[in-house]
Amino acid sequence: MSRFATPRRIRFSDCDPAGIVFYPQYFVMFNGLLEDWVDGPLAIGFADLVSRRRIGLPTVRLEADFRAVSRFGDDVLLSLAVERLGGRSITLALRCESTDGELRMAVRQVLVTTSLETHQTIDVPADLRGAIERFAG
Amino acid sequence: MSRFATPRRIRFSDCDPAGIVFYPQYFVMFNGLLEDWVDGPLAIGFADLVSRRRIGLPTVRLEADFRAVSRFGDDVLLSLAVERLGGRSITLALRCESTDGELRMAVRQVLVTTSLETHQTIDVPADLRGAIERFAG
Amino acid sequence: MSRFATPRRIRFSDCDPAGIVFYPQYFVMFNGLLEDWVDGPLAIGFADLVSRRRIGLPTVRLEADFRAVSRFGDDVLLSLAVERLGGRSITLALRCESTDGELRMAVRQVLVTTSLETHQTIDVPADLRGAIERFAG
Amino acid sequence: MSRFATPRRIRFSDCDPAGIVFYPQYFVMFNGLLEDWVDGPLAIGFADLVSRRRIGLPTVRLEADFRAVSRFGDDVLLSLAVERLGGRSITLALRCESTDGELRMAVRQVLVTTSLETHQTIDVPADLRGAIERFAG
Repeated sequence: MSRFATPRRIRFSDCDPAGIVFYPQYFVMFNGLLEDWVDGPLAIGFADLVSRRRIGLPTVRLEADFRAVSRFGDDVLLSLAVERLGGRSITLALRCESTDGELRMAVRQVLVTTSLETHQTIDVPADLRGAIERFAG
Repeated sequence: MSRFATPRRIRFSDCDPAGIVFYPQYFVMFNGLLEDWVDGPLAIGFADLVSRRRIGLPTVRLEADFRAVSRFGDDVLLSLAVERLGGRSITLALRCESTDGELRMAVRQVLVTTSLETHQTIDVPADLRGAIERFAG
Repeated sequence: MSRFATPRRIRFSDCDPAGIVFYPQYFVMFNGLLEDWVDGPLAIGFADLVSRRRIGLPTVRLEADFRAVSRFGDDVLLSLAVERLGGRSITLALRCESTDGELRMAVRQVLVTTSLETHQTIDVPADLRGAIERFAG
Repeated sequence: MSRFATPRRIRFSDCDPAGIVFYPQYFVMFNGLLEDWVDGPLAIGFADLVSRRRIGLPTVRLEADFRAVSRFGDDVLLSLAVERLGGRSITLALRCESTDGELRMAVRQVLVTTSLETHQTIDVPADLRGAIERFAG
């Protein structure tokens, strides 16, 4: 299964008074990873998708397991794989690992494609579908 | 089952370019609800727990279902119930609903009590356990 | 000079690994105060202004002095006064104080009214202008 | 005057319902730039400074001018120069520009070095001072 990965240093602004990643911040990081994946390997243009084509990718289901803490200053690897591509949904398997391979947390996330005019689901656009199929191989 | 609920207006800063709640922000809101519950009905003092007693409440498992969007300016009700109280864990059932009762999203969240010195799990402190038992009734 | 004030407890999510408010978070809090002021005493409806009327209130100038730290769990008072009302701008004097009156930080903020279609400045709408004048007295 | 610069794409999570950068988010981005500068050219280790040495760099004064909006998907250049190095303070001149040189916003920020045990100011540590002097040239 193809994985898209980017390194990330845990920032001061990611962390809470306990000195570890404030957990909602993982989802902000993963949203950035999703953008980088759509902009990069998929070559679709995330901002163009949202701002010009008015297509959204809201989350409808999320399952997250937190295994070990990430501390301020840690270097981690964020990665993403496609678990399932449905007619109107994309299921991603996301991971945050330390650079020496310790799993910090893992997420299964189901996104749907929507019209940002109506917030109703629509079919995954053909170009996005094709790009995801080529990525997933 | 006792529920603790607080009203919340969806803020500009909660929302994304699609004009709806950026989903990680729900977890920030629910963390605020958790603090209000510990400070309020439980009367334990969340900041005292964390800052002085050095006890953390990190999340180890999260399942979220997003049913309908919340828009900037919406008035919602955030609520929390205790699903299970374990020796070292607390399972919460959280909900965000519109004021007329439409379910926007629901979360099942498992927290553990940890030492903030070691980030290892510890038993739920006796006063917190007692307060949760009295709340859950 | 009329001041609009609301109490606020400093939240876990407001704070950084130093256990104090992460300074950009003060501006998020003040944005919430601005919304409450427009929704409350001004009775204009902030979300309606932005979402339906497509009028923005971006910041063009900000001066902030940070005098004392605010810690996780602190109860503070956030307040706002109108320093100047121009043709296309509103200058606010914002303060964050502890409940016993210690000044934590103060901000002078110049907002302008813009069209959210063009992001160009527009005259302060008549109803907003009237409401601010009545508030400022 | 030496400047440290890093490119940054404006993310979905940086933007508000108006589709432009929510202004407090600029300060979060600049805090990341500061970390990258301390970690990179200064070679001091920001997380080590804060977490192990317990030295903070809180902001005491901030002046910001916002000249043009940054939109979701924009590629910008964030940069930093040292305006003044005092005994216990560092004054930075920060800029966000589009990649074709349009100034989006500029900040003058005064930081002080503090003990994170007492939150009192301390002298800028010798290694940090030396590194800043070498950088500023």
